[in-house]
Amino acid sequence: MGKLVFVGLGLHDEMGVSLRGIEEIRGMDAVFAEFYTSLMIGLSIEKLEKLIGKRVSIVTRKDLEEGGGSLILQKAIEGKVALLVPGDPLIATTHIALRISAEKQGIKTRVIHGASIDSAVIGLTGLQNYKYGRSVTIPFSENKFALDTPYSVIMENRKMNLHTLCFLDIKAEEKRYMTIKEGIQLLLATEKKMERGVITLNTLVVGIARAGSRDPTVKAGYIKEVITHNFGVPPHSLVFPGKLHFMEAEALITFAGAPEQIKEMIK
Amino acid sequence: MGKLVFVGLGLHDEMGVSLRGIEEIRGMDAVFAEFYTSLMIGLSIEKLEKLIGKRVSIVTRKDLEEGGGSLILQKAIEGKVALLVPGDPLIATTHIALRISAEKQGIKTRVIHGASIDSAVIGLTGLQNYKYGRSVTIPFSENKFALDTPYSVIMENRKMNLHTLCFLDIKAEEKRYMTIKEGIQLLLATEKKMERGVITLNTLVVGIARAGSRDPTVKAGYIKEVITHNFGVPPHSLVFPGKLHFMEAEALITFAGAPEQIKEMIK
Repeated sequence: MGKLVFVGLGLHDEMGVSLRGIEEIRGMDAVFAEFYTSLMIGLSIEKLEKLIGKRVSIVTRKDLEEGGGSLILQKAIEGKVALLVPGDPLIATTHIALRISAEKQGIKTRVIHGASIDSAVIGLTGLQNYKYGRSVTIPFSENKFALDTPYSVIMENRKMNLHTLCFLDIKAEEKRYMTIKEGIQLLLATEKKMERGVITLNTLVVGIARAGSRDPTVKAGYIKEVITHNFGVPPHSLVFPGKLHFMEAEALITFAGAPEQIKEMIK
Repeated sequence: MGKLVFVGLGLHDEMGVSLRGIEEIRGMDAVFAEFYTSLMIGLSIEKLEKLIGKRVSIVTRKDLEEGGGSLILQKAIEGKVALLVPGDPLIATTHIALRISAEKQGIKTRVIHGASIDSAVIGLTGLQNYKYGRSVTIPFSENKFALDTPYSVIMENRKMNLHTLCFLDIKAEEKRYMTIKEGIQLLLATEKKMERGVITLNTLVVGIARAGSRDPTVKAGYIKEVITHNFGVPPHSLVFPGKLHFMEAEALITFAGAPEQIKEMIK
């Protein structure tokens, strides 16, 4: 009977995988991987293959989304197959769709979890987990309404004193990874249209680059400062804080170089 | 110069740690660990010590919260110290407080991320990440208002069509870990008091047990069914879904044995 195991590679490079992941991958008949849902900037396929002692076949967005992952499912009907994915599996909708297809075809599935950008970013800012509202992606898009959703999610969360985690879009096939600066510029342009005072040069924001690497950059401050900060290479993420508790302000000042005056925002 | 590294152990047992975590721990002068913020039911200290080739000193809630982690900070002023924690570090407020103290004393800090119960639970249900509102803990408490917060968080999230992830309280020093059944019973009792129709026997809920282990149990259904389901040993978590997309309903039916009639909830 077939088996499909989703293995989370965690963050940054091949060293992000768990011992359980390594053990599981080594027992597989075939190993696939996708790298278009998140960027693992430090990862080398050669090093990964050496580490697990197996050849890795890379699948593209097209294989998984248009092809429905049929390549993987065919192999998984007859044998044991792993799909390696960045971060924690099944956060991306594509993985969930593939898992549903597999189960419907009688293929057993299993999930090996990995460190996720979601909780990494939350941890690196020091803002409290239970004070985050819904998260949102800032998209690359030609559609002039595309930014309305992130803008209003930040606004609604802030009304409830909640923080907003913004994922920045990636287009792996074009090697385009949105930067903190680009994300902020898109939101400032949306502010001009919406005029609700949600995103201004004096809005507090936290930029996070390369979570999980040896040199993550975390910088908190007002947009006018953060927009010119040099965050280095992607992946980048953004957090818009809501009201701050005392310890949250301390964390932003201590870990992320926020100005002392953010203490005025303490609830 | 001193150094304090927070290493996330990931989920379930000692095999949840990343390769980067193992590498980092092996270079440390002293290794501490805490196991009161989350339950790692499969973990054995002996196996962990063997794996990393170091003695591990366990710290309690008292050491960290009342003592301010002074034991750890003293060691970290002179040498390289790791604090091993369940899941992903810095999700717990205690870890953030310790990191602030360390940085203020000139101790360099670093974070090695691990798989977190937050994203694991999201992945295992198949409900979409960006449709979760704020999360909340259902507490063990004698205070008769203690359940008002989780009850209203679920209510407010549902009004916005969002899902709610509920962490279930643990009191490690008493070896008490709240079960799905207990969590639901506390909310049903709160419903009696609040009478807003948020938690009834016909409310859809998802129970998740032992995320990250070889045998996680995920069961979705109406409260009247889920409350009698045998989830096995803790740790347990609960998710209250908001409006469902088609694929989310499919995921709950396929992965979690939800009844077909939940398709009526599709937005």
